[in-house]
Amino acid sequence: MSEGRRIVVIGGSAAGPKAAARARRVDQHARVTIIQREPDLSMASCGYPYYVGGFFEDRNKLLCTPTGVVRDPVFFMNTKGIEARTKTEAVSIDRDRRVVRCRDLESGEEDEVPYDKLVIATGASPVMPPVPGTDLEGITTLQSMRDADLLRRIRDERKIKNAVVVGGGLIGVETCEALELAGIHITVVEMLPQILMFLDWELAKLLENHMKAKGAHVITENPVSAFLGEEGKLTGVKLANGTELPCELAVVAAGVRPNVGLAGDAGLDVGSAAGGIVVNGEMQTSDPDIYAAGDCVEIPNLLTGRSVHAPYGDLANLQGRVVGTNAAGDEHDTFPGTIQTGVCKVFDYAAGATGLSERSAREEGFDVETVVHAEPDKPGFMGAKLIVMKMVAEKGSGRLLGVQCIGPGDVSKRIAIGAMALHGKLTVDDLTVADLPYAPPFSPAVDNIIACAQTLQNKMAGRLRGIPAREVKGRVDAGEDLFILDVRGADEYEQMRLGIGEVLVPLGALRKRLDELPQDRAKEIICYCKISLRGYEAARLLEAHGWTDVKVMEGGIMAWPFAREK
Amino acid sequence: MSEGRRIVVIGGSAAGPKAAARARRVDQHARVTIIQREPDLSMASCGYPYYVGGFFEDRNKLLCTPTGVVRDPVFFMNTKGIEARTKTEAVSIDRDRRVVRCRDLESGEEDEVPYDKLVIATGASPVMPPVPGTDLEGITTLQSMRDADLLRRIRDERKIKNAVVVGGGLIGVETCEALELAGIHITVVEMLPQILMFLDWELAKLLENHMKAKGAHVITENPVSAFLGEEGKLTGVKLANGTELPCELAVVAAGVRPNVGLAGDAGLDVGSAAGGIVVNGEMQTSDPDIYAAGDCVEIPNLLTGRSVHAPYGDLANLQGRVVGTNAAGDEHDTFPGTIQTGVCKVFDYAAGATGLSERSAREEGFDVETVVHAEPDKPGFMGAKLIVMKMVAEKGSGRLLGVQCIGPGDVSKRIAIGAMALHGKLTVDDLTVADLPYAPPFSPAVDNIIACAQTLQNKMAGRLRGIPAREVKGRVDAGEDLFILDVRGADEYEQMRLGIGEVLVPLGALRKRLDELPQDRAKEIICYCKISLRGYEAARLLEAHGWTDVKVMEGGIMAWPFAREK
Repeated sequence: MSEGRRIVVIGGSAAGPKAAARARRVDQHARVTIIQREPDLSMASCGYPYYVGGFFEDRNKLLCTPTGVVRDPVFFMNTKGIEARTKTEAVSIDRDRRVVRCRDLESGEEDEVPYDKLVIATGASPVMPPVPGTDLEGITTLQSMRDADLLRRIRDERKIKNAVVVGGGLIGVETCEALELAGIHITVVEMLPQILMFLDWELAKLLENHMKAKGAHVITENPVSAFLGEEGKLTGVKLANGTELPCELAVVAAGVRPNVGLAGDAGLDVGSAAGGIVVNGEMQTSDPDIYAAGDCVEIPNLLTGRSVHAPYGDLANLQGRVVGTNAAGDEHDTFPGTIQTGVCKVFDYAAGATGLSERSAREEGFDVETVVHAEPDKPGFMGAKLIVMKMVAEKGSGRLLGVQCIGPGDVSKRIAIGAMALHGKLTVDDLTVADLPYAPPFSPAVDNIIACAQTLQNKMAGRLRGIPAREVKGRVDAGEDLFILDVRGADEYEQMRLGIGEVLVPLGALRKRLDELPQDRAKEIICYCKISLRGYEAARLLEAHGWTDVKVMEGGIMAWPFAREK
Repeated sequence: MSEGRRIVVIGGSAAGPKAAARARRVDQHARVTIIQREPDLSMASCGYPYYVGGFFEDRNKLLCTPTGVVRDPVFFMNTKGIEARTKTEAVSIDRDRRVVRCRDLESGEEDEVPYDKLVIATGASPVMPPVPGTDLEGITTLQSMRDADLLRRIRDERKIKNAVVVGGGLIGVETCEALELAGIHITVVEMLPQILMFLDWELAKLLENHMKAKGAHVITENPVSAFLGEEGKLTGVKLANGTELPCELAVVAAGVRPNVGLAGDAGLDVGSAAGGIVVNGEMQTSDPDIYAAGDCVEIPNLLTGRSVHAPYGDLANLQGRVVGTNAAGDEHDTFPGTIQTGVCKVFDYAAGATGLSERSAREEGFDVETVVHAEPDKPGFMGAKLIVMKMVAEKGSGRLLGVQCIGPGDVSKRIAIGAMALHGKLTVDDLTVADLPYAPPFSPAVDNIIACAQTLQNKMAGRLRGIPAREVKGRVDAGEDLFILDVRGADEYEQMRLGIGEVLVPLGALRKRLDELPQDRAKEIICYCKISLRGYEAARLLEAHGWTDVKVMEGGIMAWPFAREK
């Protein structure tokens, strides 16, 4: 067994161990070594927020196999025959001599590890805002096991009253939930106009409303200008508009940047667009004997062809397997790219997206049609929960470009369906007749994503003229004299209404009460109901009676992202 | 509005009302009439088992819109402008004169309803076994609102002690759960060798074990030979092997047959294979002015091209919408067919399938490769639940042909993913690198369906030689001298073991204990663990040490469908 191929893997978090284990399975004669800077291996880093939030108690679960064995160097050697060197830093790569220079972080000693094939899986590092005070005590990230330990201790001690989360991305909102559940008063600060940029604005606002209802503060469009402190300790966060937020803790979750130093120093190509190590479909770098995978690489977005940095744990695992196959054997496995699918839990809601948002699709030059659709995720009698979905498709071809959802309902399932539809290059028409699994405990008879596609199909066929809630609000605020028609029942109206000057005529009475509408048939009328299905029926009815400018407010009341009455 | 196209819809359950509502929305000038034999309209018939089982109290929820309005003729007229004639039977269709002859079931009076376009949505009827005693009191189906009312009353009264469910299909197992939860002792009787024929045998058996653990009896491969009674009342069910099951109630759920009498009498084509009304892609019958949709038609299976009867509520809705569009306007919408996707809840488990099972794929002449894969549906620290999945693909091309799952985990999501993969004509290789939504509350980092595809890919590439649990059991029972290697930990072995003469050598110790294995390198060795991931690693290790006939028992202990020790 000593004559096998030498495979060296730099990085021991997700992609690295996956590549190593796969290489070993493909070639039992290979000599596989992992070089890992941190003390731990194969950490379930996506689980950190849930450990911090108290969803489970045993820290070791983040480091264990499903049967409870810690994935330490002994485990790697005994069960996989892989040498794992922890607390060891890869200092440089000598491509001519094919060696990695390593430093033992405890002893400081250096040595060289020779390779036939090298895998770089150096991950990514948190971005710190370029403002004063980042070295104050009380500022952390949630990127390492050490960070998770610190925040969990803070949670358990329950001494801290106020914290600021800098960044409203995926890790930011997950951290917000974790700390808010510990009774800490949280403010999320985001420099962009919304949180979770993988969502379009209107869905992000609905999510923000939910976070606020759960007690968190959310401030958007307002970057941090300084961390404030006394005697080296954090006392507050100052924003660009002058606001000061007193706090004893700040968690910075302002994105990550690929760790490309080692690769760049070795002369490997690093992308200018997304800043990651450049790889081909086989995950090979510009040196054919060196592969790279995980958060340190850039990969093609399959919808745009453009290289992106997609630091997701699942992709790291998929790439690691491809690299392991290719590094170990004569087979050539490929990783084609990403559609940037993601999901996260935010208190009682989930939020997810796959493919392109309307904003990103337009930026990429697509001519798009979109729709917002709100609907419960099951029949009412089975305890349904709402999902608000937005679908983006290419005009003309009808090709699906993206799906995003938020709500208390089963969001992850619909994003998974959307992701597979994108992988299959399906059109909106295809989705309207998709054969999905139906039973009342699991979905409505016509699943949310099919109903959403049907609505978008109606829009593309000119049967439905939608108007986004945001546009309605903007025009009302601008003082425009709009005729806004709520066609829900009187009881529903009593419970909750928009309060923007709308007129109530229930759909069932509309045929008989057409005289209450503007008699000028050219006057614009905007219809809605709870989710705008009855709004759509009302619009078709009005058109049949000669009104020529009837629109439906998409998603109805349930997708209205502004304050409501009652 | 009186000059519009006359659209008549026969049938008021699912496909009919959908077609009517859609036709109305597409053409507000059409005169739309529904002819419905039953007193109710738009019943959520898939919800009957959950009403019977006490999942909700209010019967009206099966008949109401999400906002609580009963879908009666007044509702149809006021909100949709559709005339709905309930308790009215369509007696015959005169295609020359384009009229439907109708009979009022209360008054007995007949009249004629003229049509320009006709939609037949007459549904399906339960099949009764051709045995004596089917007219005894105490025998029912669960097909109508009346059936649901009867069974719910039986549930609430709690007088009946023993019931037999005849048929282990979807409705049979749902009914079993509903009545078992009411404290009635249930026996499910199935004439075929397994319940739920959309599953392959090994998954059906695992489900059967769960039903038994919940207190239900399940008898397979044993048809009913007679219903027994005294004084006109059911007292028992007799099976072909002579067994008599005393019971006061029998629910017959032995499948349904399309109602094609009306269509057949009118000279429309009825299929010989699946027995449904023949329609083209636009859901047009052999008369271009007559459409048909729902449980009364046969439609293409998109994987085989063969016509099938697919009586699913979701498909009825999708077809109804297509028919509504086509009947009302000049547009031509199409319903391409089905991949026969289904799911059901069975106590704490769900069971679902999409595409072809191994059995059906082989019957259709496909050369297939399959794999059984068992895995939790989330990371362990998030409260994971098991899913046992089977994947079927075409050899050579690697095209996905089917996915089936059972277990307490989120089955419906994986079936939905599989369904979209089939719609997109993806291969197993495509699935191994699919970009699905990952976060710990929703899925493992590598989703079950991806991991299953990766295992199947290993099998197809010759890296993994799988052996089904059923084959191992058969060979053990036949007295074969097999070397069966359990590579789990000693603690796991103490908790639960197969008890088929297996030898325990934990994976972590295997490298050092190879001398405990048969030293004849040609001897067959069968490895497994809890889910057979460690079993796979063990197999690769043994191959590297010269053993030439090493197999992995698919799905490990978790997919073992027979009795286990401890």
